[in-house]
Amino acid sequence: MEIGNLIKRKSEWLRGEGPKSNIVMSTRIRIARNLDGHMFFDWANDKQRKETLENGIAALKKCSFFKKTFLLKMKNVSELDRELLVERHLMSREHAVDVKHKGLVMEDREVLSIMLNEEDHLRLQVLRSGFNIMEGWRMIDEIDTELGEHLTFAYSSKFGYLTSCPTNTGTGLRASVMLHLPALQVTDQVPNVYEAISKLGLTIRGFYGEGTEASGNFFQISNQVALGYSEMDILDNLERVINKIIAREEDTRDYLVKNKKQETADNIFRSYGTLKSARVITSRETIILLSAVRLGVDLGLIKDIDTGIINELLLLMQPAHLQKMNDKEFTPSERDMKRADLVRERLGGE
Amino acid sequence: MEIGNLIKRKSEWLRGEGPKSNIVMSTRIRIARNLDGHMFFDWANDKQRKETLENGIAALKKCSFFKKTFLLKMKNVSELDRELLVERHLMSREHAVDVKHKGLVMEDREVLSIMLNEEDHLRLQVLRSGFNIMEGWRMIDEIDTELGEHLTFAYSSKFGYLTSCPTNTGTGLRASVMLHLPALQVTDQVPNVYEAISKLGLTIRGFYGEGTEASGNFFQISNQVALGYSEMDILDNLERVINKIIAREEDTRDYLVKNKKQETADNIFRSYGTLKSARVITSRETIILLSAVRLGVDLGLIKDIDTGIINELLLLMQPAHLQKMNDKEFTPSERDMKRADLVRERLGGE
Repeated sequence: MEIGNLIKRKSEWLRGEGPKSNIVMSTRIRIARNLDGHMFFDWANDKQRKETLENGIAALKKCSFFKKTFLLKMKNVSELDRELLVERHLMSREHAVDVKHKGLVMEDREVLSIMLNEEDHLRLQVLRSGFNIMEGWRMIDEIDTELGEHLTFAYSSKFGYLTSCPTNTGTGLRASVMLHLPALQVTDQVPNVYEAISKLGLTIRGFYGEGTEASGNFFQISNQVALGYSEMDILDNLERVINKIIAREEDTRDYLVKNKKQETADNIFRSYGTLKSARVITSRETIILLSAVRLGVDLGLIKDIDTGIINELLLLMQPAHLQKMNDKEFTPSERDMKRADLVRERLGGE
Repeated sequence: MEIGNLIKRKSEWLRGEGPKSNIVMSTRIRIARNLDGHMFFDWANDKQRKETLENGIAALKKCSFFKKTFLLKMKNVSELDRELLVERHLMSREHAVDVKHKGLVMEDREVLSIMLNEEDHLRLQVLRSGFNIMEGWRMIDEIDTELGEHLTFAYSSKFGYLTSCPTNTGTGLRASVMLHLPALQVTDQVPNVYEAISKLGLTIRGFYGEGTEASGNFFQISNQVALGYSEMDILDNLERVINKIIAREEDTRDYLVKNKKQETADNIFRSYGTLKSARVITSRETIILLSAVRLGVDLGLIKDIDTGIINELLLLMQPAHLQKMNDKEFTPSERDMKRADLVRERLGGE
């Protein structure tokens, strides 16, 4: 597997397809598992870490899905390639540092990925295009079940699955939905969403993960706690809340089209014009403009491109992707030029 | 003469041709004359005003150039058409109000125009494309001489030509050059130009005339006094100063191309992209963006349009032009939409 090949294709989850893909970019389901009788990774010594990695790999190799995947040992992956995997949401930023005894199993189409020896011994992730919580859950549940046939997971009858961080203990489940909410944003309704979310045991983050601010109207909403509820309760709750947010966003889009038609179109076409013209552009500005263009596609105002191109650009415009594509290291200001070149070229600008 | 036809063609002075047309948009030469033995317009009664208008017209009719012109009596011109003539720089804003006994003689190609009974009984104007002070002077001098054969002008051997406002007394001459100085502006050198100008007996104004601020990097520079110097002294002084400003602007453009290539191109192409995309745009923003695009054309970065289109848009985007073109009255916010439509269409946008 040449990691650089990843950037030549579109990941399955970027296709801009699937249920409610006008508002939901992607759905991610992740479960955390640890090996019974082994120290958690952060407390383990070198020998113990080596053991959990090897045991994990051995079990994975026995699973039917393994033949569709490939295995990366982090220490053999270059820094730039690790950064690329992080940017593609295939693994966490933490998994890219202190790489000894860390591994990644991933599918070619980038739906399934499994981190070995991140904070937990095993972190299974399924990433799908559109609003696909239950489908994602079925996939990951199947994988978890098969893997459980070849490994004994750390489990307490009182707490459920044991994890390195107590917020994951119980189900080990985190489901996240990446929403695009430009209409709620422009009508100042996002603070209401934040307020409702926090009361319902959910949390909200930006496109580029934990600790990043929500930018360009992309919001990642996920369950905050994994303990005290069944998997189905957690997923149902998330699905119900997200459905309400989607309905509100759709209503507000209708309102904008009916009542703020000219301003909305103006912002959309100016953003599109700027992306097709700029010679220097920061990632922050790019995401804001791509958000407006995505709305333009969703509203049928922009017809010559599809959502998939926009989703892909959100990924490709990141530093490691730009450097990998050009096969060259760049300073931040060179990146801003290369980013502008990329965006212009992909959107058919001048 | 149907005044609305004016907007269907490009005035001679908008062609973007002539000497130094990369920096000088146009040159305007104006002389003020009054009829000997008649009260100045502002002090005259109705009968006297009628008389100076009729005498002026009678003399003009005897001149050889008159056959190439047409005569408008202001009271017969609609308010919108008067506004259009003001926007086209063919007459002053003051000439469009209290229109009784006011007249305008103008050429089809809009090089020569003569206001009758503005502040002075006669105000002759020649407007040329590019940097053309001496050619403009020769034209207006010839017309003045011929007109003087059929009229006696108010003249004092001590002061020269007598005018309603003392700032025009002497030669009655005002020469103005419309400069486009984007490079001096972006490098913060315009304050130096202002300082130098005021010391040299010159004055600086915006594109849309007296009292308007210089916007979009367009600056109109003209002589401040008409008394105590010969016409040649006044014109030589202006020409010399403008030549220095032109040289400085050219050097600074070279500097930008060599040292700020990417930022300069970025601003130019973003401006072009916005003009080709916007659905709502104010005149203030339009002039700023057109200025950047004009620089892009001058630097050879934008190749698919010429300077003439930009000059014409600066005129056409004004309120009376927009309403005349659409044959409809607009609210300010409707104008901002129609302006965006016009600009997009002319620049080949989407």
